[in-house]
Amino acid sequence: MSDELKQHLDGLYEVIFSRRDVRSQFLSDAIPDEVLSRILYAAHHAPSVGYMQPWNFLVIKSDAVKQRMHAAFAAANDEAKSMFDGERRELYSSLKLEGILESPVNICITCDRNRMGETVLGRTHQSDMDLYSTVCAVQNFWLAARSENIGVGWVSIVKQEQLRETLGIPEGIIPIAYLCVGYVSGFNDQPDLEKAGWSERLSLNDLVYYDQWGQQGDENESLAKQIEKDKAFPVSSKQN
Amino acid sequence: MSDELKQHLDGLYEVIFSRRDVRSQFLSDAIPDEVLSRILYAAHHAPSVGYMQPWNFLVIKSDAVKQRMHAAFAAANDEAKSMFDGERRELYSSLKLEGILESPVNICITCDRNRMGETVLGRTHQSDMDLYSTVCAVQNFWLAARSENIGVGWVSIVKQEQLRETLGIPEGIIPIAYLCVGYVSGFNDQPDLEKAGWSERLSLNDLVYYDQWGQQGDENESLAKQIEKDKAFPVSSKQN
Repeated sequence: MSDELKQHLDGLYEVIFSRRDVRSQFLSDAIPDEVLSRILYAAHHAPSVGYMQPWNFLVIKSDAVKQRMHAAFAAANDEAKSMFDGERRELYSSLKLEGILESPVNICITCDRNRMGETVLGRTHQSDMDLYSTVCAVQNFWLAARSENIGVGWVSIVKQEQLRETLGIPEGIIPIAYLCVGYVSGFNDQPDLEKAGWSERLSLNDLVYYDQWGQQGDENESLAKQIEKDKAFPVSSKQN
Repeated sequence: MSDELKQHLDGLYEVIFSRRDVRSQFLSDAIPDEVLSRILYAAHHAPSVGYMQPWNFLVIKSDAVKQRMHAAFAAANDEAKSMFDGERRELYSSLKLEGILESPVNICITCDRNRMGETVLGRTHQSDMDLYSTVCAVQNFWLAARSENIGVGWVSIVKQEQLRETLGIPEGIIPIAYLCVGYVSGFNDQPDLEKAGWSERLSLNDLVYYDQWGQQGDENESLAKQIEKDKAFPVSSKQN
């Protein structure tokens, strides 16, 4: 393995395993334009169906807009909380689920379904491919931000109509992700919901099937053995 | 900037900008289990709504299954082709759009909508968040593969019913991505569809709005200036 390839490997896996959905650790420090530009280029270089590039990026720094988004979150969160009972509701209430006001920049990433007309190469038989392309841009954004030591938190607890109204998003444009973005005091070693005991990381081997749905690796499946052996693989990257 | 952070940055951006949707360059060389295991762990460490981890990974090496998938692609592609007319149809017909048989491994990544019951933290007001989480796993998979010099091609030209039937995927499980995976003779410097003249890369500045939909950076917007200045940013990584 060349040194250059080795460097790519280490860097990429490190970024992937130490990426977090950040809610509590935002600092107010401004993000330099050079850094935000790089991260946006990373998002813009996501794969897209039929090379459609259906995304837009709304960069939100206005306090007034952030305040309205925060109010929209708070209303939706009250509704969401009421879906849980007893201990689960108490645990839910103790969780911080967004950093809209503390983070210096919010970014809304949207999908323009009509960017290339009605017929798009690759979308005919899977009509949501343009939405999925936009999510790939979100994940590129998230990883590039992490590599710059910038945290990102995805806020999904908000009514779509209120989000549209607050940002002036027209029909035909689908808001995919509302992201809080900023430098952080630190990245937790585990996802917040794992740390809080909300749920646990699943075992990868339970999720991998072979050739047909439900067919798991038996004793002779060498990949299943390797996955079992690698169980602790991401642990080293938790220590940064 | 520390040397370690610098290394992460270079590695991550290099991987993002040189990632391609591969169709024509697959080699038949087997992928070692150690490598495939690492890439699957990268996918498994994607963000997920409510820490739901709704994904499964079907690892397909069976020739019989690949043959059936290829036949399903061919039938759908004939339909898709007929959506275009004249020169556009000729250009479409000249494009190679999958590498199902040439690539040593195909992977289908699915979303189990019921993995954590009906109520999922963060999904109440945006019901597709679990599908989006699964797409994040696809993008992690794609980037980790690229960092290992392994190509990935996403096949979306196939009828969902045929895909379900071929792989035995039950109701309630949504197939998100069917991926062809393998080492390659090389990665093109541009996306295939750009190279073929199907469409062009859009200008990032045209896609970025400020605080409100449609509000573009004026002369005073320093981020817009920086984005303009960085236009050639990804070019260096095209030369590997």
